[in-house]
Amino acid sequence: MRIVECVPNFSEGRRKEVIDKIVEPFRNGKGFSLLDHRADENHNRLVVSLAGDPEAIMDALMTSAGVAFSLIDMNAHTGAHPRVGALDVVPFTPLRGVTMEECVDIAREFGKRLNEKYEVPVYFYEEAATRPERKNLENVRKGQYEGLKKAINEPERLPDVGQARLHPTAGATVVGARKFLVAFNVNLGTTRIEVAKEIAKSIRFSGGGLAHVKAIGLALEDKGMVQVSVNIVDHEKDPLYRVLELVRMEASRWGVPVVETEIYGMVPASAIYQSAARYLQVADFEPEQIIELRLLEMAGDRS
Amino acid sequence: MRIVECVPNFSEGRRKEVIDKIVEPFRNGKGFSLLDHRADENHNRLVVSLAGDPEAIMDALMTSAGVAFSLIDMNAHTGAHPRVGALDVVPFTPLRGVTMEECVDIAREFGKRLNEKYEVPVYFYEEAATRPERKNLENVRKGQYEGLKKAINEPERLPDVGQARLHPTAGATVVGARKFLVAFNVNLGTTRIEVAKEIAKSIRFSGGGLAHVKAIGLALEDKGMVQVSVNIVDHEKDPLYRVLELVRMEASRWGVPVVETEIYGMVPASAIYQSAARYLQVADFEPEQIIELRLLEMAGDRS
Repeated sequence: MRIVECVPNFSEGRRKEVIDKIVEPFRNGKGFSLLDHRADENHNRLVVSLAGDPEAIMDALMTSAGVAFSLIDMNAHTGAHPRVGALDVVPFTPLRGVTMEECVDIAREFGKRLNEKYEVPVYFYEEAATRPERKNLENVRKGQYEGLKKAINEPERLPDVGQARLHPTAGATVVGARKFLVAFNVNLGTTRIEVAKEIAKSIRFSGGGLAHVKAIGLALEDKGMVQVSVNIVDHEKDPLYRVLELVRMEASRWGVPVVETEIYGMVPASAIYQSAARYLQVADFEPEQIIELRLLEMAGDRS
Repeated sequence: MRIVECVPNFSEGRRKEVIDKIVEPFRNGKGFSLLDHRADENHNRLVVSLAGDPEAIMDALMTSAGVAFSLIDMNAHTGAHPRVGALDVVPFTPLRGVTMEECVDIAREFGKRLNEKYEVPVYFYEEAATRPERKNLENVRKGQYEGLKKAINEPERLPDVGQARLHPTAGATVVGARKFLVAFNVNLGTTRIEVAKEIAKSIRFSGGGLAHVKAIGLALEDKGMVQVSVNIVDHEKDPLYRVLELVRMEASRWGVPVVETEIYGMVPASAIYQSAARYLQVADFEPEQIIELRLLEMAGDRS
């Protein structure tokens, strides 16, 4: 059983009928499952979560991309989220029976297929990057659709696949391979936004904190709280419990309590049992002890 | 997808070739999986863990029971663990897509089939019990094989299925339906066995403690520690974190620390994410957020 997660991001978060048509090829798919999809009007963006066999996912993605390319015109697109194309980003993540190296191969193959069929230039990022500076998605998307249209001829902005011009309406697509990203928010019992910002800064990598953590501080006005909003880019190396306890410790400087937390969206079982085993002080916990993980193996062996 | 767990206990823990033959019908089964099997020489007992489709499990159990009945003579059996038959106990536990009521029906049906084919008298226990005093397995097994042989004619000891005589070599079988039992041990940093015994007494139901907890205190001589050995018979009502924190609190009276814990054998995912969510203070955690549980649903939908 080879299972990857794939989270394509499309530049459409407002037109319901367009969103439905883009999502349609992912419904009732064979060999993979539509785990989640959510559109944000403010971002004007659709985020889809798929899991299953990489080949099956690629096939459905090709169909869905065709729909998106025919219905989205990047020249008319506005939204709060940075983007360079109608199918903006496609990250592949190893889940079971697939290595990161294989996900890099999958990303490269998908990029080639996408360009061959639709003539959309493709960039590779994170583990699939061909140049060090392209590991970081923000570097690839610099200037966004409008900026890249002009800059694409510059040697350092040339696409990895395809010619040096954006697709006239679909822009470009950034395809990559990366570890599973866990979104974990910690809500604090204060309305002082500077407390959340200070804590976010102290726990994130760029501020001297944990190596695989990105974080920002936000106000939650309707709740009368503030939030440290965290992305854990490698939850095996920086587990949830460590993030929480570090936030709690930093918050104690201001006498501010952790009121509650939120795991946003999908999470791998390992992120959960890792923290459970730590807090429960379990000496040698093995994932093979979890019945459902064994049943999943069974199901895989049979298919 | 209907999934039950079934943990048949056989009265053979010493003869390797007999154990192999009993386990054989559970290997490479269709529709279910052999999760675990462990034989204990001192107990002279074999404990098998199966999970999968109830019908498939029942069929394999019928075959395996026939093997056990032909190779085990209860008149020659000795061991530390209480027992009344060659296939001693067969509990069914609901895991996915099956209710406890259905597990009671499964237990009753299996009891009937077993008696029809092998003429072994059958008793029902726990949720499948037909009389209140038979809910408790210890009452059903009172006097063990040797005692029941004489007492089986007494009105309160009559079997639920079959005539009032033990099978001449296979004895009787006790079949039931119960919730998943989690075995959770807490090791304490002291060699004072009375501390473990006092704590076990104070946390278990019979001593005034948690409603769904059984516990005893043991010495771990090779480790220089003592252990509170806990069976949680309803982990949804008495979660692991509550047991651990109660032990920790009681242990603090003696200034004794919790050194480590042990989850023994199989555990359902819910027991893990329940404790993870509690310690991580997650406000609204849904099992649907765990990728592997979604993949398992997918796999079930397809089969």
